[in-house]
Amino acid sequence: MSDTDKPATASSDTSYDNDLLAAIDLGSNSFHLMVARSVQEEIRTLERLGEKVQLAAGLDQENNLTEEAQQRALSCLKRFAPFLTGIHPDNIRIVGTNALRAARNTPCFLNRAQKVLGHPLEIISGREEARLIYMGAAHSLATPQGRRLVADIGGGSTEFIIGEGFEPKALESLHMGCVAYSKRFFPDGQITTKRYQQAVLAAKNELLNIVKPFKKLSWQQTVGTSGTIKACAAVLQQNGWSEGPITREALTKLSRALLKFKDLDSVQLTGLRSDRARVFPAGIAILQAIFELLDIQEMTFTDGALREGILFDLLGRFSDHDIREKTVTALSERYHSDLSQADAVTKTALHLFDQVKNNWKLQHDELRQVLRWAAQLHEIGLGISHSQFHKHGAYLLHHSDLPGFSHQHQSMLAVLVRSHRRKFPMAEFRSQPDILVQPLICLAILLRLAVHLNHSRPDEANLSADVKVDGKQIWLSFPNGWFESNPLTLADLETEQAYLQAYGYKLTFE
Amino acid sequence: MSDTDKPATASSDTSYDNDLLAAIDLGSNSFHLMVARSVQEEIRTLERLGEKVQLAAGLDQENNLTEEAQQRALSCLKRFAPFLTGIHPDNIRIVGTNALRAARNTPCFLNRAQKVLGHPLEIISGREEARLIYMGAAHSLATPQGRRLVADIGGGSTEFIIGEGFEPKALESLHMGCVAYSKRFFPDGQITTKRYQQAVLAAKNELLNIVKPFKKLSWQQTVGTSGTIKACAAVLQQNGWSEGPITREALTKLSRALLKFKDLDSVQLTGLRSDRARVFPAGIAILQAIFELLDIQEMTFTDGALREGILFDLLGRFSDHDIREKTVTALSERYHSDLSQADAVTKTALHLFDQVKNNWKLQHDELRQVLRWAAQLHEIGLGISHSQFHKHGAYLLHHSDLPGFSHQHQSMLAVLVRSHRRKFPMAEFRSQPDILVQPLICLAILLRLAVHLNHSRPDEANLSADVKVDGKQIWLSFPNGWFESNPLTLADLETEQAYLQAYGYKLTFE
Repeated sequence: MSDTDKPATASSDTSYDNDLLAAIDLGSNSFHLMVARSVQEEIRTLERLGEKVQLAAGLDQENNLTEEAQQRALSCLKRFAPFLTGIHPDNIRIVGTNALRAARNTPCFLNRAQKVLGHPLEIISGREEARLIYMGAAHSLATPQGRRLVADIGGGSTEFIIGEGFEPKALESLHMGCVAYSKRFFPDGQITTKRYQQAVLAAKNELLNIVKPFKKLSWQQTVGTSGTIKACAAVLQQNGWSEGPITREALTKLSRALLKFKDLDSVQLTGLRSDRARVFPAGIAILQAIFELLDIQEMTFTDGALREGILFDLLGRFSDHDIREKTVTALSERYHSDLSQADAVTKTALHLFDQVKNNWKLQHDELRQVLRWAAQLHEIGLGISHSQFHKHGAYLLHHSDLPGFSHQHQSMLAVLVRSHRRKFPMAEFRSQPDILVQPLICLAILLRLAVHLNHSRPDEANLSADVKVDGKQIWLSFPNGWFESNPLTLADLETEQAYLQAYGYKLTFE
Repeated sequence: MSDTDKPATASSDTSYDNDLLAAIDLGSNSFHLMVARSVQEEIRTLERLGEKVQLAAGLDQENNLTEEAQQRALSCLKRFAPFLTGIHPDNIRIVGTNALRAARNTPCFLNRAQKVLGHPLEIISGREEARLIYMGAAHSLATPQGRRLVADIGGGSTEFIIGEGFEPKALESLHMGCVAYSKRFFPDGQITTKRYQQAVLAAKNELLNIVKPFKKLSWQQTVGTSGTIKACAAVLQQNGWSEGPITREALTKLSRALLKFKDLDSVQLTGLRSDRARVFPAGIAILQAIFELLDIQEMTFTDGALREGILFDLLGRFSDHDIREKTVTALSERYHSDLSQADAVTKTALHLFDQVKNNWKLQHDELRQVLRWAAQLHEIGLGISHSQFHKHGAYLLHHSDLPGFSHQHQSMLAVLVRSHRRKFPMAEFRSQPDILVQPLICLAILLRLAVHLNHSRPDEANLSADVKVDGKQIWLSFPNGWFESNPLTLADLETEQAYLQAYGYKLTFE
């Protein structure tokens, strides 16, 4: 990767305490806030808040978040918001997981939440969630010895990771969680042995997909994160069913005790907080399935999970360990991109970007970064087929599990790659958040020009054009006589002129 | 690949002369028929017919084939049809290229053409066309020495191949052809130097995409196929502009001569057939661009092209050199499929298929082959993302350049992979030709059952189920006590029961 710019570190700004970091995790069961101070690549917690918002319970039959659930979420975020004050925006990351992945009206909710928090929210994929959980867990554990399995039972999804040290070897996210399973198997609140067994069976069925590859990798230590597992460990200890870790035997005792209750509302156990009780039986059914199908004898609980992972990932971005750069390189390799062409287009695109960023109001570093990634990846679709390769590239960027990237970033990259050749597909930009539409159109135009300028696949990036812009006017100027020796570029730019004209952009070149 | 069946060779059938082969190539400019006899892995031509149907000229502004153009095509096919009599259906291949790739009403035309010919037609991708052209050309050339560049200027697309011996190293298909360029640059028939130069420039612009990688591969011999190049060679010789191959100098003389004509209808040159004359200037403009941009000094014409390639490809299928098997293996590897799982599902699927093929009228070997490939490839989408991986797999199968496969076969594989898990997507089958809908639904059900039976990723394929069918009734029977030791499979089959029930299929198991 021909990197010519590093993400700006927060430390360049003086109006903030640049060592403060914040993460908010909008889980399907609970929302969590964590504020920390970074001290020499480690983090020191300053604030931790958690609330059982039970977002997943607020999904209606059409998979829309009910107004009631949105209100619960927004009032929680209102309480979180003051803690973000004084923290540099680059040091804040707010991520939504399964319930927001699933909800059809997520975009609308995100707009409302952004207004409350004054900061954009991201939705991450299940595997990205797993990656961040592992990062959080790995940092909270003692010096690594051998491989670990980390399991995190969420409200809507359960993540499984096998890792060594800080390196995940396998990442999976399964469609099962304590809130979703409570709704599915105990819909009226009644607890019966049969329903409990059905929940265990359904969880096992999900697990079947990963058992064999996970056992093949094998692991020495089993670690659990998440509220369900924390609560389980506490209940086992306080009832004297286990002295340290969660064991198989203790889990059997616990499930027997749970099955004595007739309904979710009456569940009460020493060590179990009342706001956890309703989703506890479903969570334990999932945990039991995990123990049985993965042949686990004991599991220890650790505190580090998604929000800690988010913070360590932020730290990585500031110190040249941005996982997203690795991801971009891996994608280029997988689809056999012409790397020298990708580099040439990237250099030209950034060369143009830097000349227009003020007039086109593209000052935010993130936009430059997005343009750079899109330029690096604009030809990956060729790995599928030459015909319509811009569409294939967009498909891959939209749908692939890309470590480090949020859904929104993937969607931005996809629309840029989609629009880099042929007719300008203005309609494609409509799916983007309002605030991004205009900047993305500008980036797309710059990428298109960079592609034209390097159409002949030169050995060196073509930096011969100077560019000026004013609203919808774009002037490209070339050295005297340049077009005489580059008649094909002239033809390309004439075609481009017509494409842009269709949307009122006036491209002039001389 | 766990192959348990080879394509049935035609020789098993006694009512046909099994050594006869036929290919029809529905090109954008001309249609060609070739009938041959196979003699020890070589072919001896018995019949060759060609007609300038000019399909590409019959595309209207919405990219629909006009009724007039369809009639021209159908009457040509009526003349071809009698030559197919007495040839085994497995020994006949009829392929459409660029104009039919581009036309929006191709499915409707294919139905009409199939009725005329009594045989299904296939549409192939540009790269597949290039592969077949190379195979035809390579067989027609003397013992291979070094690398060759083969260029084939068609009516709607131009194919470029670099190959060594019978092995293509690079395959490309560009959007330029003599019919399409005639329409675009000489729309009213008038010839001017400026228009001719614009056509050359546009062709060069297309070529820019391949010049660098092709030059990097390099080649020693340049060969042309197609009517344009054949006509060019003939004109050069008969006018004394060149004694043997097409040279750069001779081409310049030819283009000068062409520019003396005021319009396409008046083009007349010694050696040029009148039915070629109208599209000849556009073809020569493209050829000139090829010579200039690829730095070609001379090019020889060879007769072997698409239709010969089709016949040699057919021969390969009968003799264990079916390129499609290689393609399936390459796809599995690229997307890191779990090969042992793919093999297990394939074995189970074929085990079920063989039990129901009579009752479900699936006797055609092709259906068994399609099921086998779909089973081998059903998990490739996992290489993109776990979430919705059946859809990603279908996307890849639909859109990838898959050597040896026609568009229709890719579409059949895509719909099977699309429907192998979750709800049964009945609507997806509507895009298939009427005659295939029911057989594909049956194959999809078999694939789904095979996936359920191997859900736990066993080391050996699960062949424990016997299956019987009668219309929409399906009975699976297992050994006594089987379900007690496989409760998860029972749960899977119960879910499947509900999915199939929605479309009136009744799945029973005991």
